[in-house]
Amino acid sequence: MDENLLDDLVAANRILAEYGVIDAYGHVSIRSPDDPKRFFLARAIAPETVQREDILEYDLDAHALDARGRESVSERFIHSEIYRVRPDVIAVVHNHSPSVVPFSVTGVKMRALFHMASFIGDGLPNFEIRKAKKGSDLLVRTPQLGVALAKTLGKKPAALMRGHGSVVTGENLQRAVGRSIYLEMSARMQMQAMMLSRNITFLDAAEVKASAPVQDYKRAWPLWRQKALAKAKVER
Amino acid sequence: MDENLLDDLVAANRILAEYGVIDAYGHVSIRSPDDPKRFFLARAIAPETVQREDILEYDLDAHALDARGRESVSERFIHSEIYRVRPDVIAVVHNHSPSVVPFSVTGVKMRALFHMASFIGDGLPNFEIRKAKKGSDLLVRTPQLGVALAKTLGKKPAALMRGHGSVVTGENLQRAVGRSIYLEMSARMQMQAMMLSRNITFLDAAEVKASAPVQDYKRAWPLWRQKALAKAKVER
Amino acid sequence: MDENLLDDLVAANRILAEYGVIDAYGHVSIRSPDDPKRFFLARAIAPETVQREDILEYDLDAHALDARGRESVSERFIHSEIYRVRPDVIAVVHNHSPSVVPFSVTGVKMRALFHMASFIGDGLPNFEIRKAKKGSDLLVRTPQLGVALAKTLGKKPAALMRGHGSVVTGENLQRAVGRSIYLEMSARMQMQAMMLSRNITFLDAAEVKASAPVQDYKRAWPLWRQKALAKAKVER
Amino acid sequence: MDENLLDDLVAANRILAEYGVIDAYGHVSIRSPDDPKRFFLARAIAPETVQREDILEYDLDAHALDARGRESVSERFIHSEIYRVRPDVIAVVHNHSPSVVPFSVTGVKMRALFHMASFIGDGLPNFEIRKAKKGSDLLVRTPQLGVALAKTLGKKPAALMRGHGSVVTGENLQRAVGRSIYLEMSARMQMQAMMLSRNITFLDAAEVKASAPVQDYKRAWPLWRQKALAKAKVER
Repeated sequence: MDENLLDDLVAANRILAEYGVIDAYGHVSIRSPDDPKRFFLARAIAPETVQREDILEYDLDAHALDARGRESVSERFIHSEIYRVRPDVIAVVHNHSPSVVPFSVTGVKMRALFHMASFIGDGLPNFEIRKAKKGSDLLVRTPQLGVALAKTLGKKPAALMRGHGSVVTGENLQRAVGRSIYLEMSARMQMQAMMLSRNITFLDAAEVKASAPVQDYKRAWPLWRQKALAKAKVER
Repeated sequence: MDENLLDDLVAANRILAEYGVIDAYGHVSIRSPDDPKRFFLARAIAPETVQREDILEYDLDAHALDARGRESVSERFIHSEIYRVRPDVIAVVHNHSPSVVPFSVTGVKMRALFHMASFIGDGLPNFEIRKAKKGSDLLVRTPQLGVALAKTLGKKPAALMRGHGSVVTGENLQRAVGRSIYLEMSARMQMQAMMLSRNITFLDAAEVKASAPVQDYKRAWPLWRQKALAKAKVER
Repeated sequence: MDENLLDDLVAANRILAEYGVIDAYGHVSIRSPDDPKRFFLARAIAPETVQREDILEYDLDAHALDARGRESVSERFIHSEIYRVRPDVIAVVHNHSPSVVPFSVTGVKMRALFHMASFIGDGLPNFEIRKAKKGSDLLVRTPQLGVALAKTLGKKPAALMRGHGSVVTGENLQRAVGRSIYLEMSARMQMQAMMLSRNITFLDAAEVKASAPVQDYKRAWPLWRQKALAKAKVER
Repeated sequence: MDENLLDDLVAANRILAEYGVIDAYGHVSIRSPDDPKRFFLARAIAPETVQREDILEYDLDAHALDARGRESVSERFIHSEIYRVRPDVIAVVHNHSPSVVPFSVTGVKMRALFHMASFIGDGLPNFEIRKAKKGSDLLVRTPQLGVALAKTLGKKPAALMRGHGSVVTGENLQRAVGRSIYLEMSARMQMQAMMLSRNITFLDAAEVKASAPVQDYKRAWPLWRQKALAKAKVER
């Protein structure tokens, strides 16, 4: 893969950790620009320590092409099954976004109320893993669970995962990362708004639609990327 | 422009980012001391990376006088239209202040309850962009929207912007910056007070008036400025 | 004054800033070990920048003995009037402790529920400055207001100040500092407990009494002091 | 003791401080791999400053074997009495976890709602020290109180301590540390979920059981340990 793209993915791992969106167990992937049936994802280490050599290439069955002893994350099926059914998706983030979890366990709908997270639109689906498998450890560790999650996601940009976190997609990496950061922020804002009042003005459908092209996180991305890669370099 | 003033504006960008009041998309401007029909504002980059050479001069139609390829922020009309109708305003901050957004979407009135944010007085207006333009992306990207915002602001020191953030003004830069920082803090305090009780003692009119001259953030400013410029220097 | 004691006070200023208990406008003083009618307090600068040479000596009328052009904080009467009537008090902190303000404006009583802040006991008084002066700027800038505050404080270790913050005392500096840090923490815990339930188990009178000798923050102080002075040294 | 294990314990002290789970007064111990009737615990200093030479060995009566003037923590009986009755426990953390305290004083039951803290299961016991000793300072400073706490803990992985914090155990050190970090996080999530709705989906018994083997914090531990030991080395 192109070195620049590898660096993008290294940066994405570190940005998400820096912003508290992923802990040691989140992950982020990018579809291969050379082959839409392939994607790149770091091996099973804490994202804030990822370097270029930690990144593996996978096919859509989530098989690593050249693992050379590097351990894959068990939840890689989140990525593979979404890429399989969503050709528009170029990047996928799976996180344990702390302020999103309370929504996932109460079924209270997240809705767009902050323009930077307008992609939430009129709500995000919530993946109840129990419907696909009873008595699970909540992890999406099989192709079947990946399929079920992708089905819950449908055509939406993101889905909550009950008691676990969320999955966020983007038509490019910076969108998947930016959306993850602002999803966390929007969740906090919505909790606070709900404590203040029952009467909340959410973005309406036309506003959501108008915001979509603008909210590309293009101004934030170079700053985020540069800081992350500077840190990666120091840690080599 | 005077180099000292340029440094003030570089510092203001970085201070606001450091205090979590602006993310990659906030901005802060200062009216030109040489010509009240001009103002200075950084180009479209993340505020925490601003250096002197990123600062552009604008006229009151928000035209950059000497852009030399530097991209302007799309929401510069927030600044130009407020400077046009408020000769008392010397500095303007636009932010996505996270604790202010919940007030903006619920219509719950922010009121002065903390002496460091006494400028809130008996409440701040809330700009509902829908009244000026239906189905917008919530951004103030035209002169018309800037005019509408300035009209909502009226003679107040600040206005909330529904689902977006706020705009904060000052008769000098340190006040606009200090007010932005304490507006965020006061919003958090008011949310907490409202959860504790329905019976809140706000500052009364006489207390608000008495506090105005004192709350100039003069003791904080040199500390904030020095730290910000030290960082700017290192990053050169 | 003894250099070690001066360093204690430099450290106290910086510790309180580091822990978010004081912003640019808090202050901390210590009674002179040589003369109980004297006390030491830094000049009017941001506490996190205080160095030895910023510390002034005052008499109990809050007159600086040897100012040499150094500006005094306007609220020094908080310190002088408490030292005057409370011979047991050796150190005084005035802060804008953010989680304490919501209690001060609602009149909801803070009570001891966390053993590290057992000094709160069965509640702290709340200074309503309006009773002493209507239409004030909330600042304790006269001897008369200092007297009124000291009267509200009475024999308690601390008092809230409505819409402003609090004053915290100690029979030594480490207690005044430690209590300030844990008062903020306890306020947050009490707000959360009140949201969870109306039925809270507070420390009872015997527990408060038993905790008093133990809660001296003796284990924390050397760590706090060492970190603060290391930073002070670097900034010279 | 094996140097590697000593380093694990040094790291554990610093990790817990870094994550805000312990303040200057928390502690963490590990059972000796050579003798199950012995355990290791740092002397009475702030955990974030612990180095190898600060670690003492104790027997199950909490007597230090070779103190050489190093002061023991007064609450070491928390550790000794749990090790005595729980042969499965290899590591014990005592903390003042801030978000756990509100649960401890309200009797609201913490339950598993986040897969990373699935060990909470159907609830944790709450140690009410008053039942063992009236009018205490809340500290577990005697063998008798240690016995009472161990009895409240029973076969559970952790117990809350009313108005004080919690005790968390593990069948290895990384579990005790990881559980402490995620217990704090889960407490915050549960408070937020309870504010959003009365209808919360907790992990069911089968999910708790299935999660147990997976939630070993194995991916986080090397990252945490490496950062902590790097800091310890610098501070030497």
